[in-house]
Amino acid sequence: MSRIDGRTPDQLRPVTIERAWSKHAEGSVLVSFGDTRVLCTASFTEGVPRWRKGSGEGWVTAEYAMLPRSTNTRGDRESVRGKIGGRTHEISRLIGRSLRAVIDYKALGENTVVLDCDVLQADGGTRTAAITGAYVALADAIGWARGKKLIKATRQPLTGTVSAVSVGIVGGVPLLDLCYEEDVRAETDMNVVCTGDGRFVEVQGTAEGEPFAREELNGLLDLAVAGCDALSGIQRAALAEES
Amino acid sequence: MSRIDGRTPDQLRPVTIERAWSKHAEGSVLVSFGDTRVLCTASFTEGVPRWRKGSGEGWVTAEYAMLPRSTNTRGDRESVRGKIGGRTHEISRLIGRSLRAVIDYKALGENTVVLDCDVLQADGGTRTAAITGAYVALADAIGWARGKKLIKATRQPLTGTVSAVSVGIVGGVPLLDLCYEEDVRAETDMNVVCTGDGRFVEVQGTAEGEPFAREELNGLLDLAVAGCDALSGIQRAALAEES
Amino acid sequence: MSRIDGRTPDQLRPVTIERAWSKHAEGSVLVSFGDTRVLCTASFTEGVPRWRKGSGEGWVTAEYAMLPRSTNTRGDRESVRGKIGGRTHEISRLIGRSLRAVIDYKALGENTVVLDCDVLQADGGTRTAAITGAYVALADAIGWARGKKLIKATRQPLTGTVSAVSVGIVGGVPLLDLCYEEDVRAETDMNVVCTGDGRFVEVQGTAEGEPFAREELNGLLDLAVAGCDALSGIQRAALAEES
Amino acid sequence: MSRIDGRTPDQLRPVTIERAWSKHAEGSVLVSFGDTRVLCTASFTEGVPRWRKGSGEGWVTAEYAMLPRSTNTRGDRESVRGKIGGRTHEISRLIGRSLRAVIDYKALGENTVVLDCDVLQADGGTRTAAITGAYVALADAIGWARGKKLIKATRQPLTGTVSAVSVGIVGGVPLLDLCYEEDVRAETDMNVVCTGDGRFVEVQGTAEGEPFAREELNGLLDLAVAGCDALSGIQRAALAEES
Amino acid sequence: MSRIDGRTPDQLRPVTIERAWSKHAEGSVLVSFGDTRVLCTASFTEGVPRWRKGSGEGWVTAEYAMLPRSTNTRGDRESVRGKIGGRTHEISRLIGRSLRAVIDYKALGENTVVLDCDVLQADGGTRTAAITGAYVALADAIGWARGKKLIKATRQPLTGTVSAVSVGIVGGVPLLDLCYEEDVRAETDMNVVCTGDGRFVEVQGTAEGEPFAREELNGLLDLAVAGCDALSGIQRAALAEES
Amino acid sequence: MSRIDGRTPDQLRPVTIERAWSKHAEGSVLVSFGDTRVLCTASFTEGVPRWRKGSGEGWVTAEYAMLPRSTNTRGDRESVRGKIGGRTHEISRLIGRSLRAVIDYKALGENTVVLDCDVLQADGGTRTAAITGAYVALADAIGWARGKKLIKATRQPLTGTVSAVSVGIVGGVPLLDLCYEEDVRAETDMNVVCTGDGRFVEVQGTAEGEPFAREELNGLLDLAVAGCDALSGIQRAALAEES
Repeated sequence: MSRIDGRTPDQLRPVTIERAWSKHAEGSVLVSFGDTRVLCTASFTEGVPRWRKGSGEGWVTAEYAMLPRSTNTRGDRESVRGKIGGRTHEISRLIGRSLRAVIDYKALGENTVVLDCDVLQADGGTRTAAITGAYVALADAIGWARGKKLIKATRQPLTGTVSAVSVGIVGGVPLLDLCYEEDVRAETDMNVVCTGDGRFVEVQGTAEGEPFAREELNGLLDLAVAGCDALSGIQRAALAEES
Repeated sequence: MSRIDGRTPDQLRPVTIERAWSKHAEGSVLVSFGDTRVLCTASFTEGVPRWRKGSGEGWVTAEYAMLPRSTNTRGDRESVRGKIGGRTHEISRLIGRSLRAVIDYKALGENTVVLDCDVLQADGGTRTAAITGAYVALADAIGWARGKKLIKATRQPLTGTVSAVSVGIVGGVPLLDLCYEEDVRAETDMNVVCTGDGRFVEVQGTAEGEPFAREELNGLLDLAVAGCDALSGIQRAALAEES
Repeated sequence: MSRIDGRTPDQLRPVTIERAWSKHAEGSVLVSFGDTRVLCTASFTEGVPRWRKGSGEGWVTAEYAMLPRSTNTRGDRESVRGKIGGRTHEISRLIGRSLRAVIDYKALGENTVVLDCDVLQADGGTRTAAITGAYVALADAIGWARGKKLIKATRQPLTGTVSAVSVGIVGGVPLLDLCYEEDVRAETDMNVVCTGDGRFVEVQGTAEGEPFAREELNGLLDLAVAGCDALSGIQRAALAEES
Repeated sequence: MSRIDGRTPDQLRPVTIERAWSKHAEGSVLVSFGDTRVLCTASFTEGVPRWRKGSGEGWVTAEYAMLPRSTNTRGDRESVRGKIGGRTHEISRLIGRSLRAVIDYKALGENTVVLDCDVLQADGGTRTAAITGAYVALADAIGWARGKKLIKATRQPLTGTVSAVSVGIVGGVPLLDLCYEEDVRAETDMNVVCTGDGRFVEVQGTAEGEPFAREELNGLLDLAVAGCDALSGIQRAALAEES
Repeated sequence: MSRIDGRTPDQLRPVTIERAWSKHAEGSVLVSFGDTRVLCTASFTEGVPRWRKGSGEGWVTAEYAMLPRSTNTRGDRESVRGKIGGRTHEISRLIGRSLRAVIDYKALGENTVVLDCDVLQADGGTRTAAITGAYVALADAIGWARGKKLIKATRQPLTGTVSAVSVGIVGGVPLLDLCYEEDVRAETDMNVVCTGDGRFVEVQGTAEGEPFAREELNGLLDLAVAGCDALSGIQRAALAEES
Repeated sequence: MSRIDGRTPDQLRPVTIERAWSKHAEGSVLVSFGDTRVLCTASFTEGVPRWRKGSGEGWVTAEYAMLPRSTNTRGDRESVRGKIGGRTHEISRLIGRSLRAVIDYKALGENTVVLDCDVLQADGGTRTAAITGAYVALADAIGWARGKKLIKATRQPLTGTVSAVSVGIVGGVPLLDLCYEEDVRAETDMNVVCTGDGRFVEVQGTAEGEPFAREELNGLLDLAVAGCDALSGIQRAALAEES
């Protein structure tokens, strides 16, 4: 049984990573997972937030947002409503944690990188596309800063690579990299963030309908680990190109 | 090697569930996981939010908050700051999803239950204590409403029970039900929500330091499933008492 | 004619003061006036707000809030609404002023005590219970700080004691310590804050229906002074116990 | 011993009430208590807030605010800060309650009057000037509405008149109608709102320094009642003029 | 064809400028353009905002607001709504830019002047009245500061004068200084800010209905330049009086 | 003397208009004026805001925003700050007014189009690029709705076309379509919105340094009218293509 867009259950959507998309940011990536398109910019600044001053350690944080008409129905702007919704908060925190998992704060020194992940078009998996793209933007920003000698340490502040993918059970079948229509129908939905060596940074599984059993969880984890491994290869290839 | 408070790695803290704590709420529970104390009230009201009117289905939602001095250092009130923080949002959403996993909306009918989980004293595991206590408050509120004939359906709107526990790896050892001091030192931190029959509603694991391997994840899940099973027994016992 | 709960007009509800309720706060009291239950915590910190730095004087302030389901009908959280209501503001200010009336700022030194008064269950008189309980929490926090030598002055920063009670005219009869049902029906409602030696810190009387005459005001003040004197004794007894 | 501005202790500042100050409002008064100048406008609209619809009863409410440079030092605008301060809330509520004390809601019918009291220049006693002026604006708005037959009842919706004055103890001497410099130095500060027949609507006394004794309270009440009586005469005279 | 209030197309409404209206502000003006009345206060303070510290240059800024009942229908307070509307922002920025056009920041030195323009009564042209009045208040505040030697430079910080007027096409006829009724019916509406020597500081023209042609624009500019010239004379006359 | 990027004074930057950029919106355009890139989406919905219901007339409105790193230095998100800045408000209003100038509300019927203009990369002239691109997105959304028979009237709701360009005086020379570096150095800055037939919808000129003379204003208007005419041709060409 094939999927809505003809993929096999363990197949990613076409993934593209376009580096140096923006002229201003120290790192910038337009990442696509199928029709999901996220602009990830990495802003490098010297100095750290007040609570971290004098520690000799850097900081990495992220903000996620959706353009009002990135989705099928226009959503109100959070700036107009005057507050950030719970989902936005949650995803911003997830992206930040995921990237910090591969940062050596001491090697980064007292510098800050802010990742802005703005969803230009949404079709499921925006948070996993954001993490996957943001990693590349982060790598570019760190490369830029090392080139400018803004990072003093000689060792690489990135201790590994990180990518993310969604998996879910739809109609009883475990699927990799859900598009929006699959996501809406999923009984169980899971986002998994892995390092390039196949270990876990985040595992977030939610039963949307029926609770799920241990073997289902195991099946989803298998799919996700393989998916992250493939994404990791795409990241490497993108970073190998001249930007 | 014993834990900071003398427990074995797979031992829960003393858990107490005090029902009918408040005279006003349709269900109210003061739950303790060791020194963590959360007041969970369930407010039953006829009617549903506007977007659900006419559906014949009910709604269950939750709000989590900490008293300013529930922690070791006083925190600013979110009402004074004028906005809700990301962590608060995230936990409120988690509690709501967890309880909705065992609700039959049709059987509930067009009624709403709001769970308020206010942390009176925090010592790690506030979200898991909140879910565990809120389930009991919810069961009481539904029992009250059925007694009052406010719920029309004859079948039980609760399709199961739900409890939650934290697990984590501290100093390389997987531990059940972390207290604050353990939580701060954990390399990996996971919150697991299970139904009474041992299936998963939510699995949220985060690497605080090193990424974690598949076998570590498995070990944590084993601990958590056993912990939730024990909590499930405590919930049953509490509900068996005359409230 | 007896009152709804069988009290005589000049009788307080059962009042209990439970000290050291919370493990984190420097002073913490669960105070009950009948079914009204308020958790009062006193947070002692070295240093003062910016506008007071270098003055050699301390500061005491208070924040009052109600849990959403402390009342018969659930109220929206002020943190969710994003702003603090007028009533909350007014009561927070009243509690702060009342406690500052018995503080010798110089003796306190450049230290701050914040009183958090969170109403866990409301049945009328929450502000007067809050003041009465907060005084005891404040005394404990100051005792703690003197024990830790965080307060340099040798003289006691507390210049007296303070307690508060509500009085009102219901059905033409002046009553002490109104419960919610009486409060709703009161023609005149007054909150009085007294020091232990019977002088006034605050007198706030409001005609809810008919304006009130001078002799009615006098009758209410008589009742209130006697009530505060009794509360003052209960505070002394509580503080005399080993906490 | 004479006062800073040469008044005797029981003397009001020069009080003026200028009606029909604004061309748009149904009632509008520029009231001065010495250098304190408050613009009070009464906006009459048919209909009532949602919670009162169908009751056959009207509503009266008030909003108080200070222009940023009405005081000696410029204050931030509450609109710019994005929230209303506690003092503003407290005074708005006081003004609203004071005016509602002389309103027959049934006679007003389902109509609303909003009183806006904007302090153009502050020199102490802004809330008492606001109440005194707002009463006259309210009377004018009601007169206008009765002239337009917008109020159906034949009986007068105003059941009396209301005015307010501050009193305080400065240097041990009870004084009437404190100007700013006296207010700052007052040991005890009291705002009293009376009806024209000398009964009390609000009594709010606060010890700014030492707690105050019963006889001091009595002395202040005597002064305030006489002051309100004089203000009541000034209101009557203003309303007697052709507006 | 004469205008609604009998003026000729190129005639200003009666304009009055009352200086020293408020006892607290360093400069204060009540300006009237017909029934439009705006209270403009200039608050002089030593020091500049943080981003300008150490530059040796001063700063001038403005805030515009309308009293709720300055208009025919009562508007909600922006402080109550918790945010400032777009129109308010836009006009505040326009007033600030207009006044800064005649300021020599170096000569002002590290001092700040804040202009508050509060509309007490609105009848069209509130922003142009505000600019015209604010200039006089600013001149008074600067004169005050020079008298107090708070401004160190010997040269005048004001490099010119500034005034503003609205023009518009109503029923095909270009009119000067529109009152509210004309403004509502205008096909094109323009606000023009000029210096005393007839040059432009701001030109803001908007087609409310039909787009407007170049010759219409030219006709409006001619009217506006003449109007500003007349206002400039009124400003000079006001400043020539003993304040 | 040539410009920083080699253009002649009356030359536009390369302008591109990419239609149907987004799969969800009824109209969507990625517009570039040189390095300035704005994503304009037009969301068509049946129905109008409450205040317009029953009028038989439609509504068009716009929201403008910048991505945090669209500029050289990262700016805080307005959603995080919790309020919209004055500049954002001002530009959103300008875009909305400009597009409404070519809308026949009756022909549009009770339908709403919201234009979202999100700046992906900024290099001067973001508001004029936004207006120029938004017009095309609006035309596409209206075309879509007419195709779907959601617009009942047979006549075209668009009464003309609209485009916008910035002009300014830099180093004494009037220049068309300023890039960021020119904009920063401009003595006078003007944004002009024209219809396709060369008439004016908006003229907003501001002296950034010296006030400007009538002949300078005339020179700028000449440049702007020619620039808008060229943009109008580019819009026509874009709309002529198969989207």
